Amino acid sequence: MSRISVLGLGAMGAALAATLIRKGHSVTVWNRTAARAEPLASAGATIAATPAEAVAASDLTILCVVDYAAAGAVVAEAQDALRGRDLVNLTNGTPREAKKLAAWAEEKGAAYLDGGIMAIPPMIGEAGALILYSGTDALFERHKPSLDALAESRYLGDDTGLAALYDLALLSGMYGLFSGFLHAGALVASSGRRVGDFLPLLLPWIEAMSGTLPDLADKIDNGLHDRSVVSSLAMQAIALENIAKASTEQGVAPDFIEPMLRLAARRIAEGHGSGDISGVIEVIRRKK
Amino acid sequence: MSRISVLGLGAMGAALAATLIRKGHSVTVWNRTAARAEPLASAGATIAATPAEAVAASDLTILCVVDYAAAGAVVAEAQDALRGRDLVNLTNGTPREAKKLAAWAEEKGAAYLDGGIMAIPPMIGEAGALILYSGTDALFERHKPSLDALAESRYLGDDTGLAALYDLALLSGMYGLFSGFLHAGALVASSGRRVGDFLPLLLPWIEAMSGTLPDLADKIDNGLHDRSVVSSLAMQAIALENIAKASTEQGVAPDFIEPMLRLAARRIAEGHGSGDISGVIEVIRRKK
Repeated sequence: MSRISVLGLGAMGAALAATLIRKGHSVTVWNRTAARAEPLASAGATIAATPAEAVAASDLTILCVVDYAAAGAVVAEAQDALRGRDLVNLTNGTPREAKKLAAWAEEKGAAYLDGGIMAIPPMIGEAGALILYSGTDALFERHKPSLDALAESRYLGDDTGLAALYDLALLSGMYGLFSGFLHAGALVASSGRRVGDFLPLLLPWIEAMSGTLPDLADKIDNGLHDRSVVSSLAMQAIALENIAKASTEQGVAPDFIEPMLRLAARRIAEGHGSGDISGVIEVIRRKK
Repeated sequence: MSRISVLGLGAMGAALAATLIRKGHSVTVWNRTAARAEPLASAGATIAATPAEAVAASDLTILCVVDYAAAGAVVAEAQDALRGRDLVNLTNGTPREAKKLAAWAEEKGAAYLDGGIMAIPPMIGEAGALILYSGTDALFERHKPSLDALAESRYLGDDTGLAALYDLALLSGMYGLFSGFLHAGALVASSGRRVGDFLPLLLPWIEAMSGTLPDLADKIDNGLHDRSVVSSLAMQAIALENIAKASTEQGVAPDFIEPMLRLAARRIAEGHGSGDISGVIEVIRRKK
């Protein structure tokens, strides 16, 4: 069993600490507002008075706070204790923020691993939870058994920013799904029907359309948006215009459908109307 | 076997006619550009010289053209032949357009059924194809065996606009999925990784997140966006801001993520930051 410290006891940090305690690790916790540590102390955690004390108490420190501004403040208070320690940062942020913190921590003599949690707090320690990691390979290997107690652990490589990037990419996919669901739901509700009654149509449709993503990914990876196109962007633009028109008729604001309508039109204007919808990625990838 | 006419022989109309011929029906076809009828004639179809001749030749006429402007022009040419006939319109359009054409057709003495095809042309007649119908119940019942030759047939009710509405709602869901996928793909590609290699992470994640839609639908149907919230909108707004920030860092235009960011902020500003993301639907449902 390992000695592990957890800095930050919001909903996620508390779930991480509670899971490590439950799996038999020797856990030290610290939180800016000390009261949040008390339930964990009752469960067996040691409370540290400062971030430095927490870092000094364990081989591995897990940091999970609301953002990188908070993360930077916490580790600054612990900087004299970091030399020779392992730091895993599970705070949500951007690749650039992750790389910057990694450089700072390494300058202080710590090994750094960045992580992105693909789960909500109640899922920690349960089947289905996934944490993406990137950064110091050796740190990941040293602590993999402990990290596996939290979620399935997936190491993406030594580019420190990758876990944050893939985390945000997965969330982008989820917010796209939610955007489409909310627009569809608003259309259905506008006819007086229940959204729940529409799901037996929507869920298998989403599953079927997810099945077209490997072909779109292949077109993107090979830059071949015009190869074996079944439904051209020009044809799809007609459907998109119908969605926008019907939304207006039904009193649904077109916000969620508008970007695809606009970007598809731009791609068509550039001469790619006979190509696939995968080609729209070329419009958003272009640096402005 | 039934006598069925098909008006409009674009990719979809031709697939409908070819499938009906293959399943043994007596098929008459008409197309504005006559050359497109020839392959179907070779397969056994009778070519009609005018829309009126096609409608007169069969009990059931299926109309499938590019939009309602074209649909209106075609049926206007057939208007003297419509009395006592059954017209199924599978042209993609809005609920209002469907209702308007239904009223016109009924005034000419035809029974009218509207349909939305949830398939691409190669899927017609194959497993997985679905056609939604709404309008005249008796027409649907009379011709269900013939319509079932094209796809699984789902009758939604006698509100003529429902098939078009549900069709566009399903497409909205799909375009949301595609929007999220393209944004995620652009982030992944910006790190030099292949989008195809990201799919083993994305596809199970999308499936898992689809599993949260029944809870969101229930919250929408009952207007209870604050009930049993696991991840509050205020927390999610932080992730959305991180996506936008990382996108800028990586040279990816934020177009696809921007509506959720903006609408979530509006919902939070209205005092619903502790509620669920389902509440964003209240912002887009509001009539402008």
